[in-house]
Amino acid sequence: MSTAKQPDPARRNERSRQAILDAARELVTEVGYAKVTIEAIAARAGVGKQTIYRWWRSRGAVIFDSFLALSEGAEGLALPDTGDIEADLKTVMRATVAEFADPGFEAPIRALNSEIINDPELAAQYREKLAGPVDEAKKARLRSAQRAGQLAADADLDLALELLYAPLYQRWLHRSGPLTPEYADALVELTLRAFRP
Amino acid sequence: MSTAKQPDPARRNERSRQAILDAARELVTEVGYAKVTIEAIAARAGVGKQTIYRWWRSRGAVIFDSFLALSEGAEGLALPDTGDIEADLKTVMRATVAEFADPGFEAPIRALNSEIINDPELAAQYREKLAGPVDEAKKARLRSAQRAGQLAADADLDLALELLYAPLYQRWLHRSGPLTPEYADALVELTLRAFRP
Repeated sequence: MSTAKQPDPARRNERSRQAILDAARELVTEVGYAKVTIEAIAARAGVGKQTIYRWWRSRGAVIFDSFLALSEGAEGLALPDTGDIEADLKTVMRATVAEFADPGFEAPIRALNSEIINDPELAAQYREKLAGPVDEAKKARLRSAQRAGQLAADADLDLALELLYAPLYQRWLHRSGPLTPEYADALVELTLRAFRP
Repeated sequence: MSTAKQPDPARRNERSRQAILDAARELVTEVGYAKVTIEAIAARAGVGKQTIYRWWRSRGAVIFDSFLALSEGAEGLALPDTGDIEADLKTVMRATVAEFADPGFEAPIRALNSEIINDPELAAQYREKLAGPVDEAKKARLRSAQRAGQLAADADLDLALELLYAPLYQRWLHRSGPLTPEYADALVELTLRAFRP
């Protein structure tokens, strides 16, 4: 009880950390990834540059963490399971396509991708903290479809996820074609054909 | 004939241009994309910075062109056509997988991808000058398979190429899995199943 009157460094640190992450994400969206500097993040967050460097090793690392914070809670999100794998995957893929087409998500996700392409360490972090848990949730839904006889029992589920998502990812990354609900549906139908029992 | 004794500015320009492109590509491979400067390219090519800026608008643009030069002649390259689409695609995909796994190609291709992700104008150039012509050659082979009844007559060939190549591209870009001949074969088999007549 007596400690309640003292300043709480842990809480202050957490507030600063959150302010830095928010500032980084906002700046990427406003001015584009290439133009965001540590100085600008510090100024907007109301902290000194040295505070940022105490917690992050580089500009790329703090921006990367600001994106991770965006996706927090994704791990707990199970995919819908109505018993119809085609309908459920179409629901999920249509939502994913809409997300990729959303300008608010566009800048940070593109910046995140630049980072992970050029930094193997961030790529490993990305797989461990973000892509890995999300992929596990997706594979749980595919396993349920395998039990229901809607997918080949011996299907390589990592490969199934690649077939489903990589074309969308590449099309978005290279801006090489339209991202529409019909495109989402086509990817689901083709992947299910490829992995039919 | 009398002009033969005069210096030839066109030829000198072409020599400088080629020296700049070679220097850019070598430097990316040696020190990594992020550390290549216009100054270093100029020094290695034996030209002034202003010579580079006369022909290219940015560091990214000259590096991009140095990669294009790597792939010159790709347009004329038809895919093998033995009459067996599965065998032919496996030959091509195994070679592509080996190329992506080659350290000499790794640095420039990764750098090119960083550029096109962040620069829509370069992305459009990439599609027009490089990806477009190569995709046309691939689609010509798929059309031949359609005529032979090995692929659905109404198959969307752009989508077929995405299913075939995007998983490999994403796996390489994110370093998320092994690039093996077996992986190349699996992508061919799955794509052909998805687009079976």
